[in-house]
Amino acid sequence: MFALKFKRNVRKTAGYFFHLIFVLQHLLMFEILFQKLDEKIQLTEEEKELCKSFFTPKKLRKRQYILQEGDVCKNVTFVEKGMLRLYTVDDKGSEHIMQFAFEGWWIADQFSFLTGEPAIYNIDALEDSELLLLSKSAEEQLMQRIPKFERYFRILLQNSLIATQRRLIGSLSQTAEERYNQLINGCPTIPQRVPQHMMASFLGITPETLSRIRKQMTTKS
Amino acid sequence: MFALKFKRNVRKTAGYFFHLIFVLQHLLMFEILFQKLDEKIQLTEEEKELCKSFFTPKKLRKRQYILQEGDVCKNVTFVEKGMLRLYTVDDKGSEHIMQFAFEGWWIADQFSFLTGEPAIYNIDALEDSELLLLSKSAEEQLMQRIPKFERYFRILLQNSLIATQRRLIGSLSQTAEERYNQLINGCPTIPQRVPQHMMASFLGITPETLSRIRKQMTTKS
Repeated sequence: MFALKFKRNVRKTAGYFFHLIFVLQHLLMFEILFQKLDEKIQLTEEEKELCKSFFTPKKLRKRQYILQEGDVCKNVTFVEKGMLRLYTVDDKGSEHIMQFAFEGWWIADQFSFLTGEPAIYNIDALEDSELLLLSKSAEEQLMQRIPKFERYFRILLQNSLIATQRRLIGSLSQTAEERYNQLINGCPTIPQRVPQHMMASFLGITPETLSRIRKQMTTKS
Repeated sequence: MFALKFKRNVRKTAGYFFHLIFVLQHLLMFEILFQKLDEKIQLTEEEKELCKSFFTPKKLRKRQYILQEGDVCKNVTFVEKGMLRLYTVDDKGSEHIMQFAFEGWWIADQFSFLTGEPAIYNIDALEDSELLLLSKSAEEQLMQRIPKFERYFRILLQNSLIATQRRLIGSLSQTAEERYNQLINGCPTIPQRVPQHMMASFLGITPETLSRIRKQMTTKS
């Protein structure tokens, strides 16, 4: 009798335990997303619950692709953990990196996502990553059900536009050293997380030039 | 008696005539804006009337400024007629053009407009221009009163981001000739409206290089 009761209690406790793990996992799955949303718009608890239902979680191993050039970009991707990059490959086989996306960043081939035309970019993982995908129809529904998201995505696009314009002006008017400094100031951990040849590709310079700049900076400091 | 009646009729007719001119002018003042709005969102006649009240019309003569570096960008500007440009001047005094804005385009220093920080860009007129200005508070009120405008500005920013990303990738991976062709395909009238040295500045090349490219293209065709 005692053994039976004990067994039942263990099963019940294990049940609670696994439920707790599930709830925690689920909470953690959206942790960074809600932190980021809270910075821009105020969502009620009900809206947060509803919001979750529009996202599809996905895990990606390092070097796996989430989009390949020529395919249609069906999702905008939010990075909960890890890091992705958006890049093109030119006719000579050289990679040109448009964007790195760390935790809390969004990434997509915007033109392909908007129009349904084939993507001109690739997106792959530079680290094992945990992602939240939002499809075109889910995004539309999300904005219809919670109109604050129109505002959120507008602010997001405005910030992306400002950053891209600054990078473009930098590519027209700044020296390689100034561009490197700007990148490091904006994201100090980048040299620890991104291989040197990719940083060079992002800056539009050769790995040798980047290496020279970094040596000069070490000598100066 | 007849003369008095005649005078009154003339005055009445003149009154109608000037009222008609005023109405026509007012309609023309917003003509391109409503054409552009109609492409993205559906506004009722009442909403269009309300919308007009948020804009301030402004005429700008060629070479006049609407924003100078260091000032706060207080408006986003819609070009009804003419042409503006957004540009920076670097430490060596060289101009770098970020954007041309023709009829039907919007232009602003987005960062300054968003944050109230001093602008890093200048905006001036390359032709006599007719503009519609929308201040930060007017934009906020417009979106509150007609929420479709949240959507409109989101789509607008998405398109600007796509164009700027393409230009950035172009500056990293394309030859000067490819970039020139892309510009001409996107806007075939640009060589007739923009001086050659400004097109060179937009493309990030010297006027001599642009001149060489154009000569080569004339020889080829």
